[in-house]
Amino acid sequence: MIKAGIIGSTGYAGAELVRLLCRHSKVEIKWFGSRSYIGERYADVFRNMFEIVDEKCLDDNMEQLADAVDVIFTATPQGLCASLVNEDILNKVKMIDLSADFRLKDVAVYEKWYGIKHQSPQFLEEAVYGLCEINRSRTKDARIIANPGCYTTCSILSVYPMVKEGLIEPKSIIIDAKSGTSGAGRGAKVPNLFCEVNENIKAYGVATHRHTPEIEEQLGYAAGEEVLINFTPHLVPMQRGILVTAYADLKKDVSYEEVKAVYDKYYKKEQFVRVLEKDVCPETRWVEGSNYVDVNFKLDARTNRIIMMGALDNLIKGAAGQAVQNMNIVFGLPENMGLEQVPMFP
Amino acid sequence: MIKAGIIGSTGYAGAELVRLLCRHSKVEIKWFGSRSYIGERYADVFRNMFEIVDEKCLDDNMEQLADAVDVIFTATPQGLCASLVNEDILNKVKMIDLSADFRLKDVAVYEKWYGIKHQSPQFLEEAVYGLCEINRSRTKDARIIANPGCYTTCSILSVYPMVKEGLIEPKSIIIDAKSGTSGAGRGAKVPNLFCEVNENIKAYGVATHRHTPEIEEQLGYAAGEEVLINFTPHLVPMQRGILVTAYADLKKDVSYEEVKAVYDKYYKKEQFVRVLEKDVCPETRWVEGSNYVDVNFKLDARTNRIIMMGALDNLIKGAAGQAVQNMNIVFGLPENMGLEQVPMFP
Amino acid sequence: MIKAGIIGSTGYAGAELVRLLCRHSKVEIKWFGSRSYIGERYADVFRNMFEIVDEKCLDDNMEQLADAVDVIFTATPQGLCASLVNEDILNKVKMIDLSADFRLKDVAVYEKWYGIKHQSPQFLEEAVYGLCEINRSRTKDARIIANPGCYTTCSILSVYPMVKEGLIEPKSIIIDAKSGTSGAGRGAKVPNLFCEVNENIKAYGVATHRHTPEIEEQLGYAAGEEVLINFTPHLVPMQRGILVTAYADLKKDVSYEEVKAVYDKYYKKEQFVRVLEKDVCPETRWVEGSNYVDVNFKLDARTNRIIMMGALDNLIKGAAGQAVQNMNIVFGLPENMGLEQVPMFP
Amino acid sequence: MIKAGIIGSTGYAGAELVRLLCRHSKVEIKWFGSRSYIGERYADVFRNMFEIVDEKCLDDNMEQLADAVDVIFTATPQGLCASLVNEDILNKVKMIDLSADFRLKDVAVYEKWYGIKHQSPQFLEEAVYGLCEINRSRTKDARIIANPGCYTTCSILSVYPMVKEGLIEPKSIIIDAKSGTSGAGRGAKVPNLFCEVNENIKAYGVATHRHTPEIEEQLGYAAGEEVLINFTPHLVPMQRGILVTAYADLKKDVSYEEVKAVYDKYYKKEQFVRVLEKDVCPETRWVEGSNYVDVNFKLDARTNRIIMMGALDNLIKGAAGQAVQNMNIVFGLPENMGLEQVPMFP
Repeated sequence: MIKAGIIGSTGYAGAELVRLLCRHSKVEIKWFGSRSYIGERYADVFRNMFEIVDEKCLDDNMEQLADAVDVIFTATPQGLCASLVNEDILNKVKMIDLSADFRLKDVAVYEKWYGIKHQSPQFLEEAVYGLCEINRSRTKDARIIANPGCYTTCSILSVYPMVKEGLIEPKSIIIDAKSGTSGAGRGAKVPNLFCEVNENIKAYGVATHRHTPEIEEQLGYAAGEEVLINFTPHLVPMQRGILVTAYADLKKDVSYEEVKAVYDKYYKKEQFVRVLEKDVCPETRWVEGSNYVDVNFKLDARTNRIIMMGALDNLIKGAAGQAVQNMNIVFGLPENMGLEQVPMFP
Repeated sequence: MIKAGIIGSTGYAGAELVRLLCRHSKVEIKWFGSRSYIGERYADVFRNMFEIVDEKCLDDNMEQLADAVDVIFTATPQGLCASLVNEDILNKVKMIDLSADFRLKDVAVYEKWYGIKHQSPQFLEEAVYGLCEINRSRTKDARIIANPGCYTTCSILSVYPMVKEGLIEPKSIIIDAKSGTSGAGRGAKVPNLFCEVNENIKAYGVATHRHTPEIEEQLGYAAGEEVLINFTPHLVPMQRGILVTAYADLKKDVSYEEVKAVYDKYYKKEQFVRVLEKDVCPETRWVEGSNYVDVNFKLDARTNRIIMMGALDNLIKGAAGQAVQNMNIVFGLPENMGLEQVPMFP
Repeated sequence: MIKAGIIGSTGYAGAELVRLLCRHSKVEIKWFGSRSYIGERYADVFRNMFEIVDEKCLDDNMEQLADAVDVIFTATPQGLCASLVNEDILNKVKMIDLSADFRLKDVAVYEKWYGIKHQSPQFLEEAVYGLCEINRSRTKDARIIANPGCYTTCSILSVYPMVKEGLIEPKSIIIDAKSGTSGAGRGAKVPNLFCEVNENIKAYGVATHRHTPEIEEQLGYAAGEEVLINFTPHLVPMQRGILVTAYADLKKDVSYEEVKAVYDKYYKKEQFVRVLEKDVCPETRWVEGSNYVDVNFKLDARTNRIIMMGALDNLIKGAAGQAVQNMNIVFGLPENMGLEQVPMFP
Repeated sequence: MIKAGIIGSTGYAGAELVRLLCRHSKVEIKWFGSRSYIGERYADVFRNMFEIVDEKCLDDNMEQLADAVDVIFTATPQGLCASLVNEDILNKVKMIDLSADFRLKDVAVYEKWYGIKHQSPQFLEEAVYGLCEINRSRTKDARIIANPGCYTTCSILSVYPMVKEGLIEPKSIIIDAKSGTSGAGRGAKVPNLFCEVNENIKAYGVATHRHTPEIEEQLGYAAGEEVLINFTPHLVPMQRGILVTAYADLKKDVSYEEVKAVYDKYYKKEQFVRVLEKDVCPETRWVEGSNYVDVNFKLDARTNRIIMMGALDNLIKGAAGQAVQNMNIVFGLPENMGLEQVPMFP
């Protein structure tokens, strides 16, 4: 059995990780870290876990934790993981970080967009960006895996084949994204109250959202040149789900069949990426509760643009599910172990 | 492998059955019955099933079906199962009926509350009422299992220990129930449109709802005398979940500890019934996506009443999950096989 | 023009009061009190008010306020109004208190259910309980009006005619109430976050909710004897609305027509109470955005009980609307002035 | 008093028109047209109208109606208004059409995008496109007013100043729009059921939505050259509201102040268009229940683009409210008469 520890186990992403791991046949959770609830029973914080998890929440003692487990998941605010990790710890355990600390290779970009100083820039180079479908070969031997953001996973997977094949202008990409409210976290803030979110939709972080450089960097690797995007996130009154609607100028005339072949080239063999059939738009309800990403596209001859769409569950493929997928890769398990949930509808 | 056929596989309960069975390690679905979608691919009706279920929908041919499978689930409107079943079929397959056709022993009561003539009263006696926690010993050898209603399962399990132990007045019970909208089915009706259900709560079927006699009959067996209840269902703007708030007059002074012991007597060893801790109220979010029923109670010395509460997922423990649980019992499998989902929150 | 001041203008009830009063043709709001937002523009807190309200939020200086206005509304937590009011202030202005401070005549009952010491018991006797349809004749000359609670208004109006006419057993009344989330206030608390409230229903305050004694006291006046109830509130994932489902034992056989006549006796001439037609259940969507209360009932001969139902908008008839109605009475204006909004659907 | 008739009064837009007009001090509704509910009481279809509207629904007899009223509103599916209108009718009454029949000047474009033959192309030239803020001078004397679509009103008003002033590339405009579900109408269809819409977001009509040519035509007049857009609508789980997020390439470097001045130039004096303050994003909750449109923009120097945003209530400014506004213009009333509702929040 793989022994796992979770730092930040009482946020929504951390709790989803608990939910997935406690039914994973090869994993045992040994550490339910939660600075806010130290000493409280985990099942008193998340009552769905009553009679399933009996443990109490523990402090974030990374040193002690590194001795107790094989893999540490950090589902914490930016900066925490980078401030705790060190060579000694990395020699003992695998680290899968759900925060943004090791996603951007350029420390200056990180510090500019996140507004904090990076505490462990020395590990940036070795950290592997854990977008499984694209980087799995490098993930296998990584000590630190930077688990991608939810918006990012959906955005990149939706447009990756077109960028990789050089079919769209890399500076014409506009990504309009919509997220369920669990993405906003479990902090007690007025803007996240039921009556503030319900019966409303809004854009936020317009032209300044922190997932922007992450998407640009990863798509840049695929394009082999600089990618510059507009990224606009929106808050939607629902629990889970991210929908991405992306627009780009086509470099040349392409048919539906040609583009379909391009998407199939990258995703046909992928269990967790489903390229939908012609004219079927991704919808978050069809992936909710699962590790799937549904993608599709529509060509618009009138404007010479392609509209690319993707949908995923932000807490699963956009966070905890992908973290488990990365763990499976690292420990040589079947990639879909513990991730075979069928999307739950309605 | 157990071969299963589903009649009515494109309603919400039928679809949930598909979702559960397609991850059940001992079952293979051989027949996706759906009169409304004959010949269409199942995954075109429920797109969450894309790349998971490849089959097409078939007609409701019960004779042919009986030759092809080991167990038939009917998730259909009242009257259909009773009109199709016969001795020949019952000799070939096990029948688990999610409709109300075989729940009431008294055909006159059925015909009065449902307003239709019963087509197979000859099977009423042998049919077993499939409330697993109470009737499992008789379920094992049944040919027909009447899978209980969603309101009914939640109502009965919430008050059963008090009735069984004779602690409450059997004619004082008032059950005020609240249901998510999936309970209203997938029919295209104006009252079930998003804009009609959302931002609203209403009672319906006041003093006339068909689950009333079902609850009274089952509680009557427990009480050993006639039980008469008021039952009022309400429609709540959410997908899944039933919450029951039940009131009854206490026959004598009892302490919290005494009542807790009574609930534990019946449910302590039950995996799927969780008796919550003191003063914790059941909430539908903590059971959603699972086969759990959460129950608890509160004594009110001022009024000499007990308030009993229960919560379950109407599509799982209230329909498809309990059907799978019954199937497991009938075929001698572990009762929780395929039903170990942890409640999904948020 | 009547000059009005609001203490607590940035809670949901206070904001609704602002919304109603700023379109009331005889009122001018002179004081937007809000301890949490002193010095901030009101329209920065509630952006629906942009270009409608230009004022800034002020402190809760009751003395200064009493010199500036004709009427003070307090939409504040329990205890505040009682701690600020005094003889001098009451000689200068009318006081309409939306909190519970002056609703209960018996200071011991107040202190027991609210757990705080009452700071101004000397005003309890003169305060008028402002349930307009029942107490309007006494409201006219009051200095302090105790604006009823939202659950209370709905509960009392739903059962009042039956109690007043002595048709039901006063100790058999059970009130099962359901509320939208705006009733929980605008405080930043985890249980009120979108992801915690959405897709969930729960009971809370079972057998201990503070509106219980308020309902019992008022119904007791109507009955002329002690009334003892069970009251269970539930939280529903919607913005506004309260639905009450109340049960009681009938004292004697009554027909639909007899009971209808009783309801009409009290409400036929009331603009804001609509007695629905036979078998039509109240629904919150049909009153949302208005000052209406919809009520109806169903007789159940099987159990010899009556089920009484009521629906209102908790922020309007359950709070700010009734406060305006009380103000209209006090200042001799038509009772419906500024309250003629048609319910908004969908 | 202006006598008004409504054809299609039992759709959501028609019902909103009823709600607004029955509180308009200069209007009397004389005809509640509804083919689906002929002979039924209007208040039995929309129970919010109980004790407010006593009339029954009538057939769509346009000839008879023209003799009975001063203004006819048609809130009906495409094609109906064009099939009923004629010279005789137009000589008797003003016609305000909420459908698309007279919005597009080019009959070929209409027939291509709507897939039906236009029955009255002879009136296309004289019909005035009733976007009040832009065309009010021509509306005054019109016989037919083509009331704009909900997406269209929001889209055009959000980008109009930039197009009119020639600051953005007219073929670079991408409009990503999000709508509440009342925009989908009250037809009984599976995709509009609560359980299908709730907890979901999806794009639809990608590259083919019928509001596309309407937006292009109107913006083309403003630009003085052809405008070509991508328009993608999305369905959001909420009752009301449209949010537009539009992207365009800037023709030259502009500062925040310069662009703000451009928006103010067109909207400063408009009561119903609110240009928000710097960095405040429009949200549908702040306009719900009112005739306001909130607009704002953000410049992105990195990509040399502007992001323009707008929010409105699709049933008011996007349909019934704008129809009333047009009626006010036509009959020489103050433009805001009957439209002064403050947005309702929460």
